Amino acid sequence: MKTTESKIRIIPEGGVTSPQGFLAAGVAAGIKNGKKEKKDIGILISQVPAVAAGVYTTNAVQAAPLLVSKESLQKQGTLRAVVVNSGNANACTGEQGLADAKTMQEWVAKSAGIHPDEVGVASTGVIGVFLPMDRMEAGISEAVPLASAQGGKDFAEAIMTTDLVKKEIAVRAEIAGTTVTIGGTAKGSGMIHPNMATMLGFVTTDAAVETNALQDALRQVTDRTFNRITVDGDTSTNDMVLLLANGMAGHDALTSAHEDWPIFLAALEVVALHLAKTIARDGEGATRLIEARVTGAKTEEDAIKAAKTIVGSSLVKTAVFGADANWGRLMMAIGKSGAYVEQNRVEIWIGDIQVAADGMGLSFDEELATRELAKDPVVFRVNLNVGDGEAAAYGCDLSYDYVKINGSYRT
Amino acid sequence: MKTTESKIRIIPEGGVTSPQGFLAAGVAAGIKNGKKEKKDIGILISQVPAVAAGVYTTNAVQAAPLLVSKESLQKQGTLRAVVVNSGNANACTGEQGLADAKTMQEWVAKSAGIHPDEVGVASTGVIGVFLPMDRMEAGISEAVPLASAQGGKDFAEAIMTTDLVKKEIAVRAEIAGTTVTIGGTAKGSGMIHPNMATMLGFVTTDAAVETNALQDALRQVTDRTFNRITVDGDTSTNDMVLLLANGMAGHDALTSAHEDWPIFLAALEVVALHLAKTIARDGEGATRLIEARVTGAKTEEDAIKAAKTIVGSSLVKTAVFGADANWGRLMMAIGKSGAYVEQNRVEIWIGDIQVAADGMGLSFDEELATRELAKDPVVFRVNLNVGDGEAAAYGCDLSYDYVKINGSYRT
Repeated sequence: MKTTESKIRIIPEGGVTSPQGFLAAGVAAGIKNGKKEKKDIGILISQVPAVAAGVYTTNAVQAAPLLVSKESLQKQGTLRAVVVNSGNANACTGEQGLADAKTMQEWVAKSAGIHPDEVGVASTGVIGVFLPMDRMEAGISEAVPLASAQGGKDFAEAIMTTDLVKKEIAVRAEIAGTTVTIGGTAKGSGMIHPNMATMLGFVTTDAAVETNALQDALRQVTDRTFNRITVDGDTSTNDMVLLLANGMAGHDALTSAHEDWPIFLAALEVVALHLAKTIARDGEGATRLIEARVTGAKTEEDAIKAAKTIVGSSLVKTAVFGADANWGRLMMAIGKSGAYVEQNRVEIWIGDIQVAADGMGLSFDEELATRELAKDPVVFRVNLNVGDGEAAAYGCDLSYDYVKINGSYRT
Repeated sequence: MKTTESKIRIIPEGGVTSPQGFLAAGVAAGIKNGKKEKKDIGILISQVPAVAAGVYTTNAVQAAPLLVSKESLQKQGTLRAVVVNSGNANACTGEQGLADAKTMQEWVAKSAGIHPDEVGVASTGVIGVFLPMDRMEAGISEAVPLASAQGGKDFAEAIMTTDLVKKEIAVRAEIAGTTVTIGGTAKGSGMIHPNMATMLGFVTTDAAVETNALQDALRQVTDRTFNRITVDGDTSTNDMVLLLANGMAGHDALTSAHEDWPIFLAALEVVALHLAKTIARDGEGATRLIEARVTGAKTEEDAIKAAKTIVGSSLVKTAVFGADANWGRLMMAIGKSGAYVEQNRVEIWIGDIQVAADGMGLSFDEELATRELAKDPVVFRVNLNVGDGEAAAYGCDLSYDYVKINGSYRT
């Protein structure tokens, strides 16, 4: 992996429009309350049809735009555009919601001169309120003509809700004898939990990739990145990640058999992991990113369980917020995770400070430990000492502001 | 059930010493930090050997007192005493912890003139610190001789940690031609989640009950009460509920075949449900009890899943704290619960106000809904409309104080 990763270069200020042939825009349409306070409609366009892959929320209640996007993607296999609004999730909106999502496709299609099934639709925001379709129409008509190769930042801004920071990245790698670029943006802050939470992610690339290979790559990488983060244990109705590969880099279509496939996968993982970590770090009210690295688990699956449970525990999260070296809460989390545990073999580190061995506390310098807990990210390492499974997961601390933000989200 | 319940009378100010032959005491021994600020050692004694049943945490990391109590109970089947300390969980303390728990048994046994295996041991408090055995010894020697039929309140106080209120109840019912009394106390506030959380419960009765029947009764009732509450989704290493039946009411031993068995079960459930709800209401930082009643689920199991997920969702909990009628979060919780859901059939009520039908929002009076959300308990009713399964679960809101309490628990 090391040699593979060394071939991947991060593009300063890169985003979804860094790959060739992708244009984007973001405009303020007043979706949430009529006030045009922030950009809330984003448009992403590929100049040529892009092979597309998607992963979606596991919530049994699924929002209209997600159902509509899934259906169009199945029919078409390629996308030419994506339209996203923040400020309203178009979830729990029944037949009307489905009709509204389709109308959004139609407006974009008409404006961009493409087919409605070539338009992915995503929405994020409050659940259970019908979209303000007049404002949506005005916003879409305004946004589509504005789409440009410089519009990635505006798109990234338009998809934010309670996010405090824009989440963008782009990387470059030599693949199949040419330079391939992968760019991405995401939003997510609350309702974030493994398995596609209130999270939208859009990844673009000018690589040429065969359809099934692209879907496999997205699934594989998502499992190691977006599905390893949690903010509050809640799983949204709207989550999706779309990956568009438009082939404009000009090489033959990649499959998993290609010698450079590992480089493509690794580059995609760099993009997805950056976005995932940035989402966790920007968790509602969060002050620090928490990284849990579990080794020595019986299986990789056990390591994932333990790592996710650590970063998901309210008690661990509040201890990090308070910079309290309460490693007993890590033991509790590991124990409840469902992973195979022999409690007398567990070792725990907070940053570089080992705080437990043989399942028991070591005497350690509290001040040093507190200093590790004040870092960003806070890194917990756990060795279960019962096998070779390892995994990492990402979360954030739980602060007063999480309560404040979520006690009055609608109002 | 109605007629059965009508035969059950609540005893004002009742507790673990309400049944015949139970004595208790609580003393301040300075377990946590040497300061005798609150009672922290509790002793419960039965004047005759009591048939005993126990249920324990499902956490793979289990505290020493729990392992020791389980072992003694298996050997003996009866208990004469229970010793509990707060301020230190004696968890993640290895061989030393096991030895300390056994020493606690020995000290109580010696002082009370009984066998060490007749002593149940429980601890609650911070994880990973060895018990201060000198203070423990002094406290136990002081407490045992103080045990009296008036000591239930002191015992209830001694087991509290971050609890704000004592949790006690006793009921009386006519069973097998005589008056039977059941009393109980519990502690629990944080690390509370279905399946035995940081929760200790002690239930006493002067009923005579056959061993296996007693264990079945406790398991059955626990599943409907203590295992239906959640405060923060975390599951402790120390949870247990012990039920002692000393037979001093003087009737023949009950089994599930006895005609009055349903009355015994119902009376036990009244005690356990009261304690469970009181724990949820007293969740760390909580301002209100949340009750989720789910009907129309495909199975009872599905109803339990949906109800527990509602009361466990951080987003639902913060919405209650902020009295925000954000029913979309209930839809989200139902959807992620794993219960079978047809999203277009879901109906939701906040108190008496119906807020959603056919999976979509109804127009409702926000002010009335806010008023329902300011009540204690806040009652959410959900009809999934796909079957006959029903269940209730109990939790509490998530406030600033939860973060405050848990950001600095040890310090």
